[in-house]
Formats: sequence, C-alpha cells, structure tokens
Amino acid sequence: MENSNPIAVFTIKRLSIYLRSLLQLKNEGKHYVSSIEIAELNGFTSAQVRKDLSVFGNFGVKGKGYNIDNLITGLNRILGLNKKISVSLFGLGRLGEALLENKGFQRQGFEFVAIFDIDRTKIGRKFNNIVVHHPDELPQIASKLKIDIAIVTVPNENAKKTLQSIVEARIRGIFNFTDARIQLPEGFYMQNVNLAGELETISYFISQKNK
Amino acid sequence: MENSNPIAVFTIKRLSIYLRSLLQLKNEGKHYVSSIEIAELNGFTSAQVRKDLSVFGNFGVKGKGYNIDNLITGLNRILGLNKKISVSLFGLGRLGEALLENKGFQRQGFEFVAIFDIDRTKIGRKFNNIVVHHPDELPQIASKLKIDIAIVTVPNENAKKTLQSIVEARIRGIFNFTDARIQLPEGFYMQNVNLAGELETISYFISQKNK
Repeated sequence: MENSNPIAVFTIKRLSIYLRSLLQLKNEGKHYVSSIEIAELNGFTSAQVRKDLSVFGNFGVKGKGYNIDNLITGLNRILGLNKKISVSLFGLGRLGEALLENKGFQRQGFEFVAIFDIDRTKIGRKFNNIVVHHPDELPQIASKLKIDIAIVTVPNENAKKTLQSIVEARIRGIFNFTDARIQLPEGFYMQNVNLAGELETISYFISQKNK
Repeated sequence: MENSNPIAVFTIKRLSIYLRSLLQLKNEGKHYVSSIEIAELNGFTSAQVRKDLSVFGNFGVKGKGYNIDNLITGLNRILGLNKKISVSLFGLGRLGEALLENKGFQRQGFEFVAIFDIDRTKIGRKFNNIVVHHPDELPQIASKLKIDIAIVTVPNENAKKTLQSIVEARIRGIFNFTDARIQLPEGFYMQNVNLAGELETISYFISQKNK
C-alpha cells in the first residue's frame, strides 16, 4: 500500500481492525471488552489500543472496559460508515467480479451502484443486478447517482485515462489496483494496491532467511 | 496492510515500485535513469530514491545516473526474484481465480504449482493447467514440490485451520486475504490484506472532507 499520509492511515487501519473484532465479539453475545482483549485479538499492545481509541474521545468505562455497542457506533461514525457508501467498479474482469462479490464489503455497508467496462458484449447486461455501462456514460451516471468510491481494476493500458475520468466525474475516493498513478485534486483520496509488489515483499523476507 | 516491521516493509515496497518503473523504462529502450526520474515517476523525492538504493550498495554512475540493467539485476537479487518462486493457492473462489490469472505475478516470475480447495467438485480438475487438491494432501505435496509462498483466500470459517496447516507444511511465506491471524514461527513471514479495511480507510478520508 502506498499513500501520502502513512501515520494517519495506519491509525485508521487499526480502527478498522478493532471494528471487525468488536463486531465479532458482539456476535458472540458480549457487551463489554477491555483494551487488553482487543489488543490480544489483533497482535497489538493494549497501550496502542487505548491511545488509538483515546484520540477520538473517551469510550471506556473504568473497571468494565469499553461498551461494545457504543464503540461500534463511534468507530462507524469515525470511519464514515454510519451512512450508505456508494461504490462503482471500473473493469469487469475476474478481479472485478471477485470484488463485486466480496462479503466483507457487503457486511460493512458498501453498496455497488454502477459497473463500467469497455467490452461491448458486457455493456447493458447485469452483473449481481447492477447494469454494466460504457465509461463514456460516466459523466451522466455520476451526476445522477452519488458515487463515493471508484474501484479500478482495468488493464494498465487504460488505467490512466480511467483514473482521470473518475476525477473529472468528482468521485473522490479511489481504490486503485492498477499500476497507473495520477496527481489528485485537494479533497480526493486514492489507495493503491500492488498485488505483485506484496508478493515481492514476501519473497524478500523469506529469501533473507535462506542467506 | 499490517505487519510487524513497517519501516523495512515500506523500503522493500518502494524497491518493488522502482523495479516496475525500471522494467517499463527498459521496454521503452532506455539504458540509464536518474534518481530524479525514478522519483518523479512514482511520486517520491529523489533523496528518498537515492537513500533507498544506497542501502544496497552504490548502483549509480556519476553524471549518467543508474544503469537500468544493473539496477534491475540488483533489485531482482535483493527481492529474491533471481530464482523461480513457487506459489500455491488455498481457496479456488472468484478471488482465487483472479489471482491465478494475475498478469503482474506471471511477469515477476511467480509460478503457481498447486491449488487446494475442499470442494469435491473441483478436486482432481485442472485450473490454468494446475491440479486442484484436497488440503489433506498438503503435507505430501509440500514435501514433493518446494512451495515458497501460500496465497490464502479461503472463507474466514476455515482460515485459521488453513493457516496452521500451511505453517506445519513449512511454507514460510503467506499472503493472507482472510480475517484470521496466527502466531508465526521464526523465519516465516505473513502479509495480511484486508480489502474491506482498505475501503473503510478511503471512506474515512473522503468523509473527513465533508465535515
């Protein structure tokens, strides 16, 4: 993952990990949890957990720990998950299809509202009940639907043009699986994922141990 | 992305990004590149690029910049990519299929050698010319094929058991797309990807700008 503000990003990622643990504990019928329990579930220190959660106000109750429902509500609000988040997919290949069906996205309230692909055999058809459009239609569709986040899995050759059209359509959140990089206007945020790069990182660390 | 050694991990991820740029420049017929060019292609500072590359010895030629072929060879060696890396997939769902066909993996010399899935209708069949096995066969197969990295896309319910069996089979690199976490023995390395968490991070940053 690459980003321009790594410290804040890591805090937010930990909050998202805490949220997942809390939802699991709630499902198990629990009502309160300590920072130590949250820490142990995720391999962090309890001091780290308390520090992360204190930044956003005091959610804890002395001696009892955190009220799980309150903490879930607080974290959802902080992460902007207390409302529906509309997502569009650019590139309906195998990875795109896998992301459309990702259960974790559905669980967290992300809702796919549009799919874009240049393949004429796919345009006009539905996938998971969502119509596939040609990217030329993006300006009209973006002004009709309020799209919060674009997930981009198009081939690298088309990626830069796609990213630019997404910015022009004022979709401010971008989850980019391509190698293309662009400058973003103020108020936009792009998260890049480089899957081959992640495998290279693993390759590096396991080859170190062979030396 | 979560990991236990973020500083080193970020250096390695930048090296992998430089490598991708260098392969692109080589394809364009270039022979030398400056730290400034590498920096501008990727949105880093040239000081950062020089620092990252100097850690691994002096690849630069004064006035000409870096010889691209030498740098590619050096980076491939550092990242452990100067030999074939054998990869196995655990969980042949849509995400697994997408990863099996990932062109970036193929380009970098990663080679899938085995697939594991508990679905009896898939076992014994081939996907991309690779036979699907039941996970019970892992110990025998792992001792026959030398598997370097396991990519894990099984459902969360089966994930912990799968991760434990991978460690028992002495596969030391793990690329984990599930919510499960386990303690690893010394010499093992696991990279976790939480796709819903990445979307939550984007959601957080774009909702900040609305406040």
